[in-house]
Amino acid sequence: MTTGRAETFADGVLAIAATLLILNVGSNLPAATHPTHGLGHELVKSWPTFAAYGISFFTIGIIWVNHHALMQQIARVDRTFLFITVFFLMTVSFIPFPTRLIADNLQTGEGRVAALTYGFTLTATAAGFNALWFYAIRKGRLLRSDADPAVVKGITRSYISGPWIYLLATLIALPSPGASLILFAAFNLFWVLESSLFGRARDSTAES
Amino acid sequence: MTTGRAETFADGVLAIAATLLILNVGSNLPAATHPTHGLGHELVKSWPTFAAYGISFFTIGIIWVNHHALMQQIARVDRTFLFITVFFLMTVSFIPFPTRLIADNLQTGEGRVAALTYGFTLTATAAGFNALWFYAIRKGRLLRSDADPAVVKGITRSYISGPWIYLLATLIALPSPGASLILFAAFNLFWVLESSLFGRARDSTAES
Amino acid sequence: MTTGRAETFADGVLAIAATLLILNVGSNLPAATHPTHGLGHELVKSWPTFAAYGISFFTIGIIWVNHHALMQQIARVDRTFLFITVFFLMTVSFIPFPTRLIADNLQTGEGRVAALTYGFTLTATAAGFNALWFYAIRKGRLLRSDADPAVVKGITRSYISGPWIYLLATLIALPSPGASLILFAAFNLFWVLESSLFGRARDSTAES
Amino acid sequence: MTTGRAETFADGVLAIAATLLILNVGSNLPAATHPTHGLGHELVKSWPTFAAYGISFFTIGIIWVNHHALMQQIARVDRTFLFITVFFLMTVSFIPFPTRLIADNLQTGEGRVAALTYGFTLTATAAGFNALWFYAIRKGRLLRSDADPAVVKGITRSYISGPWIYLLATLIALPSPGASLILFAAFNLFWVLESSLFGRARDSTAES
Repeated sequence: MTTGRAETFADGVLAIAATLLILNVGSNLPAATHPTHGLGHELVKSWPTFAAYGISFFTIGIIWVNHHALMQQIARVDRTFLFITVFFLMTVSFIPFPTRLIADNLQTGEGRVAALTYGFTLTATAAGFNALWFYAIRKGRLLRSDADPAVVKGITRSYISGPWIYLLATLIALPSPGASLILFAAFNLFWVLESSLFGRARDSTAES
Repeated sequence: MTTGRAETFADGVLAIAATLLILNVGSNLPAATHPTHGLGHELVKSWPTFAAYGISFFTIGIIWVNHHALMQQIARVDRTFLFITVFFLMTVSFIPFPTRLIADNLQTGEGRVAALTYGFTLTATAAGFNALWFYAIRKGRLLRSDADPAVVKGITRSYISGPWIYLLATLIALPSPGASLILFAAFNLFWVLESSLFGRARDSTAES
Repeated sequence: MTTGRAETFADGVLAIAATLLILNVGSNLPAATHPTHGLGHELVKSWPTFAAYGISFFTIGIIWVNHHALMQQIARVDRTFLFITVFFLMTVSFIPFPTRLIADNLQTGEGRVAALTYGFTLTATAAGFNALWFYAIRKGRLLRSDADPAVVKGITRSYISGPWIYLLATLIALPSPGASLILFAAFNLFWVLESSLFGRARDSTAES
Repeated sequence: MTTGRAETFADGVLAIAATLLILNVGSNLPAATHPTHGLGHELVKSWPTFAAYGISFFTIGIIWVNHHALMQQIARVDRTFLFITVFFLMTVSFIPFPTRLIADNLQTGEGRVAALTYGFTLTATAAGFNALWFYAIRKGRLLRSDADPAVVKGITRSYISGPWIYLLATLIALPSPGASLILFAAFNLFWVLESSLFGRARDSTAES
């Protein structure tokens, strides 16, 4: 089996999961605003729904970019790989739920449970991603015959610690839900900067 | 007509139906939690929405994998095949509704009606899938000219009993809704294991 | 410009519009059922939501099959064609709204307004479809150079009366909303049968 | 990396964001209509939800057409380009939220805040689009080797002022929310006419 439909289906689920996030935004706006607390006031007050939208959209976007890079090393898929893909996509398309929990509860006393649910979901996503990768490369099972061993090793090194770092960031929600969320936002920023800036530096070095 | 757009449209509907399932999760969470029954308590209490999400997502994922395998045996489509595809997709994209019924009613006295609705939907899906397959292979109408007769016979054998087994599992909801749902979850697990483990064993045998 | 992305985008909007229809199904179920009117009773009572789901899903499915056939005659697209595509898709993705109106109002005194809104939406869809086709074929602007004039003429003949027939069926809602809806369901059935059965008969004749 | 998956993902997000707009339409219809204010009356009264649907659907459609034109000049993508794509799509898929704000608030005293939110979202979209373009063309980084410098210069000229014009139209909401929205609708109309009519005129000139 070729990789085409696995990419189409994954792109579909990732695009929908990211776009559905907007349905949560503003879900806690009151149906009618009071004269003293106008719409502007309510929008400012619901900043957690905007922050949660931004963090989760970027998280799914980064997953998409990484899935893209992963599939480029793969020549074919088998049924087990497709079922791991289904499991992986099930965790990604779960993200809108804990995102809503955070948006609704960050400012109440329930921020801890919300942040833990969010963190465990992202940890499961990272674990599903690793399962995809390690299944594909074991004994070179699904790898392209011309895959560069240095690139494969580089991807392995950059993914292997992912679930553990995410689990750690999740557990930080026990003492401080806010710190846990800031960590997940920082991971996103780090990924974007690391692969944009340093990735480009590496590319330049490779070319010279 | 080539098979390209039939696959794109099917992938789209399957990806959306699977991803929409998340909208039901937590729909029965109270807007505000009570001090004595916190968010954690409410999340644990709504375990049926999580179980229903997982079972239905995997069911749609398995349908996707099987549709993928079916389309690989097919060289072209005609209008009748496209209309059967529309009917088939109509049953698949119906799945989020009975999934919600189960999540909302499993713990009330109405679990029976919910499980029956779920089961009949999955039975219709299996029947639609068979209609696609038997229409395509009748007189070799839409089959690839190089389709392996052994593979075609194998697919036929593995699908032909599907709707009847699903109907049986549906009717088990009459005495016991819970048993019916556990059966549908077990079918999923069986499919994944059967085609991953035994499928691989078969492949190894075929290669040697 | 090639036709590829116009098809991808259209497939996406059509698949999503069809799959979103399920969100309306059961939206009028009560949050909790009464002991005397159980869930089964409520489901039977909401038959219009199921009928509306089926008719609208098949309508969008038929639009997809027809759009597929239209694009096969076209070699390239220009900006005007893309903007007509956007207008056409805007009418199709509007369908879930009047579908909900019908499901919610068929059994109240407001069935007339709901059926009129539904009919005018489908009439606009048919008009948008014709705009696509007649723009493409005018002076052979976007047609494939090897397009069969007989096929082009056949498509023209089968589409040209569409909006007028739909407008008529819409206006029948003034005296009888139910009759109008039955007509739209009958059009679907007719299309499926006509292009499946007679289409196949024509193909057989053409081959001999 | 080739441009294929960046287009698939963008098409997916754009198609979904456009199709989700329908979920807002009629969200402010009362559950039951009064004998004196029937459904027809309520539909006429909710004209802002229809206007907002139309304007936002066309806005996203125009973004799709422009993204299509942009990607045709590009030969390859890198990680930074993909991350800018994610940011750009995040602003586009935000559009359903301010669209709902406008539909719900245009007739109340809160139209100003709603129109400002809408305008700033579209300004961010235009800025994200420009970021994509200027990143791609800087030092010819991602351009096709055979890209026509005149076409590249033409696209640059037509996009560079976009965010500033949108920002101006946004600020006009301070004195008059309605004027701001009419301006955004007029921009859409202008784009469609400009690139259809004049674009065709230019093409004719180029051919002769």
